Amino acid sequence: MPELRKDPVIGRWVIIATERNLRPNDYVIEKDESINDLSKCPFEEGNESMTPPEILSYRDPNTNKNEKGWWIRVIPNKYPALRIEGELDKRGVGMYDMMNGIGAHEIVIETTNHFEEMSDMQESHIEEIIWAWRDRVIDLKKDKRFKYILIFKNKGSQAGASLKHPHSQIIALPIVPIRVFQELDGSREYYNFKDRCVFCDIIQQEIEEKDRMVEENHEFISIVPFAPRFPFELWILPKKHSSDFIDVSKSDVVSLSKVLKRSLLRLKKVLNDPPFNLLIHTSPLDKYNLDYYHWHIEIMPRLTKVAGFEWGTGFYINPTRPEDCAKYLKEVDINY
Amino acid sequence: MPELRKDPVIGRWVIIATERNLRPNDYVIEKDESINDLSKCPFEEGNESMTPPEILSYRDPNTNKNEKGWWIRVIPNKYPALRIEGELDKRGVGMYDMMNGIGAHEIVIETTNHFEEMSDMQESHIEEIIWAWRDRVIDLKKDKRFKYILIFKNKGSQAGASLKHPHSQIIALPIVPIRVFQELDGSREYYNFKDRCVFCDIIQQEIEEKDRMVEENHEFISIVPFAPRFPFELWILPKKHSSDFIDVSKSDVVSLSKVLKRSLLRLKKVLNDPPFNLLIHTSPLDKYNLDYYHWHIEIMPRLTKVAGFEWGTGFYINPTRPEDCAKYLKEVDINY
Repeated sequence: MPELRKDPVIGRWVIIATERNLRPNDYVIEKDESINDLSKCPFEEGNESMTPPEILSYRDPNTNKNEKGWWIRVIPNKYPALRIEGELDKRGVGMYDMMNGIGAHEIVIETTNHFEEMSDMQESHIEEIIWAWRDRVIDLKKDKRFKYILIFKNKGSQAGASLKHPHSQIIALPIVPIRVFQELDGSREYYNFKDRCVFCDIIQQEIEEKDRMVEENHEFISIVPFAPRFPFELWILPKKHSSDFIDVSKSDVVSLSKVLKRSLLRLKKVLNDPPFNLLIHTSPLDKYNLDYYHWHIEIMPRLTKVAGFEWGTGFYINPTRPEDCAKYLKEVDINY
Repeated sequence: MPELRKDPVIGRWVIIATERNLRPNDYVIEKDESINDLSKCPFEEGNESMTPPEILSYRDPNTNKNEKGWWIRVIPNKYPALRIEGELDKRGVGMYDMMNGIGAHEIVIETTNHFEEMSDMQESHIEEIIWAWRDRVIDLKKDKRFKYILIFKNKGSQAGASLKHPHSQIIALPIVPIRVFQELDGSREYYNFKDRCVFCDIIQQEIEEKDRMVEENHEFISIVPFAPRFPFELWILPKKHSSDFIDVSKSDVVSLSKVLKRSLLRLKKVLNDPPFNLLIHTSPLDKYNLDYYHWHIEIMPRLTKVAGFEWGTGFYINPTRPEDCAKYLKEVDINY
């Protein structure tokens, strides 16, 4: 059983993946797990038997589960960081706190096409991916053991993707990740002081100033934030206040798909197809309709290597001005 | 002038290195800046003119500054993340906060020998490095613009080192890094609740339990922490309560040098000379003699790649049990 352990100083929980339990030699050689032989890729159409049984699929109604005929397919992660079965069994070990690593870890296979990145997809197909994310959250949040559901995507091996075939991941957690906690704390404090949502204020200022704006339509904006940790970091925010990703409307999904595609395409063009991480920050499951929090997407291209120092301090050096990042992204030609 | 900008949500400051201001193409090719031709290494003995003038050196008293004859040499970073001259000029930009990137950024050249890693050095030489670190902190803290001084070391290009020649770095900052803030907050909260230092409690439990202990002598312990973010992460803590690194005694330095060398040597043997980051967490400059905080060293080998996701969430998956890490480290033969 994986363990969740809490750092007694700053209160950060980590997963100890006791079942993998790598030995020192496992770290020595960096494995490149990209699969070029498509017959061996478990996410290809026709290879459905190479994965655990599907949890959800969008497919031709005349086809059977776990067979061909799908265009989006959600499966449990074959090597999950957390286990779905069991109780949390929260306990102390002397001064320390821990619990069992209970949770869900799912893979959203975004397309049957091994080589079709999200930035290349039809907008209507990206909409389907967003609906699949939402469908899974709606289902997972029924499980009262879970406190937070994280939707994220690693693109490129340098961003942590072990398989090339386009996919995203969903993790349901019995704790709220510390970074989300910090955002909730910070935005609550701002709200208490100003009686306004900090993200709404950010959106207003960015729309007025324009120099960090990358994409804008009726429902969403995509900006380089004022104080980004990483060069070419992007945030996508709904203009209308909402703390919960699952509350997206039909027209929101259409707009989000457009902004997401266009933002990713701009990153791809400007940075020559960079590895990146994408994640959705939304409110914890036991909170709803918060006045002070605002769901959003963060996209972090992996361009800089100076990382361990930043890990240890939370102190980042960003070598490109956000306004210049936005300018490069805005000016690149993305006609498609 | 570099800028310091504050994230309005979680309050994290970042440095925008406006003078470097890399363009997109600068990120495309990953440069390997390791220098094999020693005549081109600016940290070699005899190449003193390739660096800015030295700030401090431990050298033969019969030799001149910025010439041969030193065994440890401290210089300003030629490409500093922060500027030493100027005022902070704190200001708002609409809802955002920023200030000028004022600070010091120094390099401690740890040895004249290009190939002598800290783990290979004589303990007496490591003592000298520790004294050089302390000497610089004592000097820098006189500057009232600075709030925090960070001592750290990147070893290996994957850990962010751009030069191979063994060196560490010192950055004096006009703000306290968010991670240190979190440690101060967390340990103050623990102290308010228990009337004891959380680190002192950790030390006591680790000495009793023994299964995460790697090195111990009269003054220091080296442990794999209970809830580490990274496999084979190590913390070195002084047994006697002290919030301030600069308060180390002469015998502390002797003991610390021993524990540091032995810990690094164990990591090197077990993990085949891994890249790592080392940093000292100590109290901010405007605080002193804190009952609730305890200075320490954190060492993070860079073994796992799954990083961007962790950056975005503060949520880490560690694939090796801390108790097993400690066992591997303890059992390896390091006679020297």
